[in-house]
Amino acid sequence: MVLTLVGHPLSTCTRRVALVAKEVGIPYEIVPVDFAKGEHKSPKFLAKQPFGQVPYIDDDGFTLFESRAIGRYLAAKTKSPLLPNELHANAKFETAASIEYSNFDHYATGIAVEKVFKKMRGLEGDAARAEEHWQTLQNKLKAYEQILGTQKYLAGDEVTLADLFHLPYGYTIIQAGYKPFETPNLKRWWNDISNRPSWQAVKDGV
Amino acid sequence: MVLTLVGHPLSTCTRRVALVAKEVGIPYEIVPVDFAKGEHKSPKFLAKQPFGQVPYIDDDGFTLFESRAIGRYLAAKTKSPLLPNELHANAKFETAASIEYSNFDHYATGIAVEKVFKKMRGLEGDAARAEEHWQTLQNKLKAYEQILGTQKYLAGDEVTLADLFHLPYGYTIIQAGYKPFETPNLKRWWNDISNRPSWQAVKDGV
Repeated sequence: MVLTLVGHPLSTCTRRVALVAKEVGIPYEIVPVDFAKGEHKSPKFLAKQPFGQVPYIDDDGFTLFESRAIGRYLAAKTKSPLLPNELHANAKFETAASIEYSNFDHYATGIAVEKVFKKMRGLEGDAARAEEHWQTLQNKLKAYEQILGTQKYLAGDEVTLADLFHLPYGYTIIQAGYKPFETPNLKRWWNDISNRPSWQAVKDGV
Repeated sequence: MVLTLVGHPLSTCTRRVALVAKEVGIPYEIVPVDFAKGEHKSPKFLAKQPFGQVPYIDDDGFTLFESRAIGRYLAAKTKSPLLPNELHANAKFETAASIEYSNFDHYATGIAVEKVFKKMRGLEGDAARAEEHWQTLQNKLKAYEQILGTQKYLAGDEVTLADLFHLPYGYTIIQAGYKPFETPNLKRWWNDISNRPSWQAVKDGV
């Protein structure tokens, strides 16, 4: 049975799930949510995703939300090396996954909200707050540069979900005119992950 | 060999690791970092933790950072049920762990920064920003209330790391005068997890 991906073709988190599905070779069918009609806040939707966010999946009756959790599930189901299993390799993967959440996503999302998402809704973004996030992000990326100087990817010399999870927001802020990945190791890493066929297939819409 | 926990007795993330170590029965030795002397930004420290944050662990030569990743490692090493292993149970755990990161930590940390951490450094907190985080957090916690109305814990009817990871920042904002867990299911859940002997042992310092 084909995986049902309930979300939106352009949503960052929907693309994160589609990316992993492509990587591990699981076909999916997108079921678009109508934000304009407030469908994501309807009782039917909230019964599946109580925070009213996209996406969620329905895998033959098993529903699941949070894009990274879905990505992990698809990788675990297919026993993909994108999710390392051995104790120490898994621990390094978990460190990298946590770095993405606490040292990248927080700031990249902050920039995207002020510079992209608010504008899409006809609202004025807070330029000072975007700048504050950008300054912090640049500092965090210095540590990325150091890490990527001793290993190819964030969890070691093999690509993992922790690297790929950066793609939707990294791409969004680049489209908004930012240049987060300009130092040598970051540039190599970003070129590597963003040129993967999986991301090329979903980067501009699922 | 005793686990070395390099951090600070009062740091939220150091307490998160100590909490899990207590839960899974791994003894540890705390090695305090002198923030006043900038020890966390020294080359020696940055070689172990490139972001200059606490804590990191040294487990007989295996070093690891990011408090949640360390917590997962300690649970995996001891095969603790706090980290479910079966495909679907693990997927529900990962959803709960991601909820903690994206729907709780972001806002609770934001409040703690403005209302607690800046004051500790003699700086003025931004009251309007704290209020913005608080309003958003209260909305997010309505979904928590719904989830905890159908199951005992965030990942199902068994406690997991995803519940426990809320303790350090939940406790910090309660100490700052906020009342995030007042609705019936949230109150039951918070009383349950915060009264565990592990948290009682480390909540005011490791």
